Amino acid sequence: MLKLPGLIDPHVHVREPGQTHKEDWDTATQAALAGGITMILAMPNTKPPIFDASTLELAFAAAKQKARCDYAQFIGAGPDNAAMAASLADKAAGLKMYLDSTFGELRLDDMALWMPHFEKYPKDFPIVLHSESRTMAAGILFAAIYDRPVHIAHISLKEEVLLIKAARERGIKVTCEVCPHHLFLSKEDIPAISHGHPGRSEVRPRLATKEDVDALWENMDVIDCFATDHAPHTLEEKDSDNPPPGFPGLETILPLLLTAVSESRLAIPDLIEKMYTNPRKIFNLPEPGETWIEVDENAEYEIKTANQFTRCGWTPFEGWKVKGKVRKVVLRGTTAFENGKILVEQGYGKDIRSLKGDL
Amino acid sequence: MLKLPGLIDPHVHVREPGQTHKEDWDTATQAALAGGITMILAMPNTKPPIFDASTLELAFAAAKQKARCDYAQFIGAGPDNAAMAASLADKAAGLKMYLDSTFGELRLDDMALWMPHFEKYPKDFPIVLHSESRTMAAGILFAAIYDRPVHIAHISLKEEVLLIKAARERGIKVTCEVCPHHLFLSKEDIPAISHGHPGRSEVRPRLATKEDVDALWENMDVIDCFATDHAPHTLEEKDSDNPPPGFPGLETILPLLLTAVSESRLAIPDLIEKMYTNPRKIFNLPEPGETWIEVDENAEYEIKTANQFTRCGWTPFEGWKVKGKVRKVVLRGTTAFENGKILVEQGYGKDIRSLKGDL
Repeated sequence: MLKLPGLIDPHVHVREPGQTHKEDWDTATQAALAGGITMILAMPNTKPPIFDASTLELAFAAAKQKARCDYAQFIGAGPDNAAMAASLADKAAGLKMYLDSTFGELRLDDMALWMPHFEKYPKDFPIVLHSESRTMAAGILFAAIYDRPVHIAHISLKEEVLLIKAARERGIKVTCEVCPHHLFLSKEDIPAISHGHPGRSEVRPRLATKEDVDALWENMDVIDCFATDHAPHTLEEKDSDNPPPGFPGLETILPLLLTAVSESRLAIPDLIEKMYTNPRKIFNLPEPGETWIEVDENAEYEIKTANQFTRCGWTPFEGWKVKGKVRKVVLRGTTAFENGKILVEQGYGKDIRSLKGDL
Repeated sequence: MLKLPGLIDPHVHVREPGQTHKEDWDTATQAALAGGITMILAMPNTKPPIFDASTLELAFAAAKQKARCDYAQFIGAGPDNAAMAASLADKAAGLKMYLDSTFGELRLDDMALWMPHFEKYPKDFPIVLHSESRTMAAGILFAAIYDRPVHIAHISLKEEVLLIKAARERGIKVTCEVCPHHLFLSKEDIPAISHGHPGRSEVRPRLATKEDVDALWENMDVIDCFATDHAPHTLEEKDSDNPPPGFPGLETILPLLLTAVSESRLAIPDLIEKMYTNPRKIFNLPEPGETWIEVDENAEYEIKTANQFTRCGWTPFEGWKVKGKVRKVVLRGTTAFENGKILVEQGYGKDIRSLKGDL
């Protein structure tokens, strides 16, 4: 039995407020605990998006009532909320800027709209960018110009990891995360994931080439965090004519990574660094007392939708044989998950930004 | 009569080798002289593109035989010629990297392909980027990472000029040029230019909004150079089903800018700075001895295709009333143009990179 720190997922779409048929603060945090994750950072592109004090309160109200693991809530950067967002920085996980592939209120097409956010958001709280390829490079230039840290969400390309490496060597304050689906899947896997429904493989950033996947593994030292980008949609939605992009991931990240450990493609200290130590540093997260998870690293089994807590009802990794199972999760002195059962109530989870000091 | 230095155009598509039905080294350099320009820097996306020693020789052979004004020839960055291009740096105007809107051999889609060029091209010769919007930001990040100057071709957007300003304030070595068509035309002018042929308004970067145009004028101090991006295509091509992007510009840049001077939108010292002093600095160009132009700043007339030397046979500024006419051009002690007539022979022009010291 392997004991690890309670893991942190800095990139989760909880879907509440607004799309609770996909997921909510209850089911998302159950899925997190079942996946060995004791703290999630929630993305702001809900309906409505979280971009000011009143929408932030909407998310907090739902989370306070329902969350079973600890959490913080990102605030979204919009075309005209820079001062507002900055004034809420100490309540938020950080500022999320959607610079690619996003529609609606949080769209920031023009780089001139990025400037007030970089000027105003406090430097001791993170700015996280959805920014792919050249847009990512543009985001890193902003980090250089405004001399402040940025964290690049879900990198997926060889050019991205190489450029982050080069920028960091030059002293630019850039960190990054990678998702399991960009480490374990490539374009070549699309037919197998799709089961005849092309929408099931839709995700942003898209699944990349085998060369890109290999470059991520070869530059594992450049990657600061693993993050799920848990983005649940129902199977009905995924199989529709207009399939939304996104995969669930909270319950599969750790078994997939532990399987890579069993194959000597990854080491346990790397896993701890990228799922606990680094996210704590980058996102300025408190130390959770009496919090750990226990994992049977020799348990072999198949990933099955039927065993999942997420509401979305599917996983792109259905049927994958993995090695490594979460047996027990202890969160702040209480056993929150054990032998497949959630043992803490709704509302047990805490908003880590509302606390002073460590948990 | 106003006396100015011989002007320098750092961005000219001569079309030779390969497309001499549009233009060649003879007609392009006649158009330059008629426009008050005594030195042109020629772009490498000819047919074939100029990207190695033998293609560079093709351009030099044509230029040596035909050019009537002075010149240098850019070498193009391709996916695998970084070492070759760098080895030819002292013969070339600089390295041109096509990072947007280009097809064929000089396409560099993947940012990983940019890296060897930035690593290898000597820092005392310029790298010029065709890079719009976020790609421009990516290019400036490369300048920061590799700590070397880049020159951004034909900026057209508010976000571009603002970001260049911010990057420069941060100490990043970036310069830029703007074209007359982005200063004097916006999207709103497309119907008037088109004369029923939408292809006539096609240009890359595209004509922008009035707000973008205004931002360029308001940030005139950020703009280092005026450049024509003289990109001649025949009217037949422009009016075809697949119109190529590009405008001629060598013969209209100075009258348009002098008209702006007459309207107090620009000052003569700015014009000299951006068409002589700055290009000399940025591109490391020699001082031409006994070279000047004489301009009648009070001459009012209409721009007319019939009066042009370019082979392409049209101008987007047809019928524009302008104030300011080139009367005489003296190049290295010889009157090269006077009262509408070219007075130097083919071959009078010199490759300025082949000379040691000043002309």
